[in-house]
Amino acid sequence: MRFRWRQKVLFKHCDPAGIVFYPRYFEMLNDCVEAFFDEALDWQFETLHKEAAVPTASISVDFTAPSRHGDLLEFSLTVAKLGGASMRLEFQAACDGEIRLKGTSALVYVAANGRPQPWPQDIRKRIADKKLET
Amino acid sequence: MRFRWRQKVLFKHCDPAGIVFYPRYFEMLNDCVEAFFDEALDWQFETLHKEAAVPTASISVDFTAPSRHGDLLEFSLTVAKLGGASMRLEFQAACDGEIRLKGTSALVYVAANGRPQPWPQDIRKRIADKKLET
Amino acid sequence: MRFRWRQKVLFKHCDPAGIVFYPRYFEMLNDCVEAFFDEALDWQFETLHKEAAVPTASISVDFTAPSRHGDLLEFSLTVAKLGGASMRLEFQAACDGEIRLKGTSALVYVAANGRPQPWPQDIRKRIADKKLET
Amino acid sequence: MRFRWRQKVLFKHCDPAGIVFYPRYFEMLNDCVEAFFDEALDWQFETLHKEAAVPTASISVDFTAPSRHGDLLEFSLTVAKLGGASMRLEFQAACDGEIRLKGTSALVYVAANGRPQPWPQDIRKRIADKKLET
Repeated sequence: MRFRWRQKVLFKHCDPAGIVFYPRYFEMLNDCVEAFFDEALDWQFETLHKEAAVPTASISVDFTAPSRHGDLLEFSLTVAKLGGASMRLEFQAACDGEIRLKGTSALVYVAANGRPQPWPQDIRKRIADKKLET
Repeated sequence: MRFRWRQKVLFKHCDPAGIVFYPRYFEMLNDCVEAFFDEALDWQFETLHKEAAVPTASISVDFTAPSRHGDLLEFSLTVAKLGGASMRLEFQAACDGEIRLKGTSALVYVAANGRPQPWPQDIRKRIADKKLET
Repeated sequence: MRFRWRQKVLFKHCDPAGIVFYPRYFEMLNDCVEAFFDEALDWQFETLHKEAAVPTASISVDFTAPSRHGDLLEFSLTVAKLGGASMRLEFQAACDGEIRLKGTSALVYVAANGRPQPWPQDIRKRIADKKLET
Repeated sequence: MRFRWRQKVLFKHCDPAGIVFYPRYFEMLNDCVEAFFDEALDWQFETLHKEAAVPTASISVDFTAPSRHGDLLEFSLTVAKLGGASMRLEFQAACDGEIRLKGTSALVYVAANGRPQPWPQDIRKRIADKKLET
């Protein structure tokens, strides 16, 4: 099961070369992960962040083709590995079947003091029940 | 020889958790690369982009420690490999000796039509002369 | 007739004080105007920008109450005055009936060379037909 | 006495039309105000924000000419009126003597609970001593 999320390439995303400025892709990815927590895990970022955080520990992306203003990007995301306090994500974005980017990232679930802490049991269960882990 | 560049962590870079929002690191990196082209290669981005571009083809970063508002980040960057039309960069950012991020990226030199083209000879020479390649 | 558009306050919009960083409101407004051109005027920004542009000539906003992560903002926008090459917009954003911001801006329709040019007749007609002007 | 601050227009600031995307001007202004507090008032934003905040209550800007990649913008800023808990700023940015934007904004000094509070006496004194108020 892959989580799917769409983002049209807007004016704000594009650079003088007329293509998506790559730091904007990371904002899109962050929005996609926020939507994944909200819609797939039923755990809204605004709730989670009252007492904890999920900083990105690493990220690796290949930008395989440029995206232009107006392109409709279809992101898909899956949990490649759920560790004790970490979550490895695999994602890609495509437009009309052409892959524009693909990559992996690792999130860590940390307490307000910044220390890693175990994922809540109901989150583990939800990921298992919904087969969100590959 | 490593290219060095500094960026104080400003209010705009930080998220509700009080640390740098990671897409902002990629904006900093882009600024660092722009400064590298300007100061180390004597090739200003605004000149380069009149007829060409240097899109990022891939990037991989480990965020090894969080950065907070007010931290002075010292970026350093080196050319790990100069290909025909590509450039592999290695970079890191540290604050008071603590590494905050390290990674690699690949840029491609493309013509206005988006096709890769060979780096100008004087740029190759400058990188060699200044020992900017590791 | 007011054009309506919604934006949830996301993690990326918020600053260390936990409220929307005000430059992010201007990105939202730009997205709202882009959606207005697309949905209300049937004139997509990606089409318009192939040969022209609509830079913002002035903007004035009162931020009447802070917005927090998770708030659902309801933007509304109307054309206060349609000039020869200009368009005066009035807008506001509210959450649960509380106004968060209200303001006005002026756009100018310019050719590729940056010179103001008359709005296309069908756009004038569409604004009149849909009663988008107050 | 006007506070002066410089910002080169970088790749990240520019849109597909090759000019500064106006929300980026507001990020620059925020950086300029942050530098003003730091350098002119000797009150670093990272210190101030540990216990308080200075949200922008209103802002009004005329964009009088476009700015392009590579332009060196010279911002200047002055305190037009220092109220009990508010501060009215006047600012402009120019390149080679051509004004690109000018405007005013109002900041409010608020406690951690979001309520306005009187500016510290030493800040009032510093503004008076340095003649930063017009």
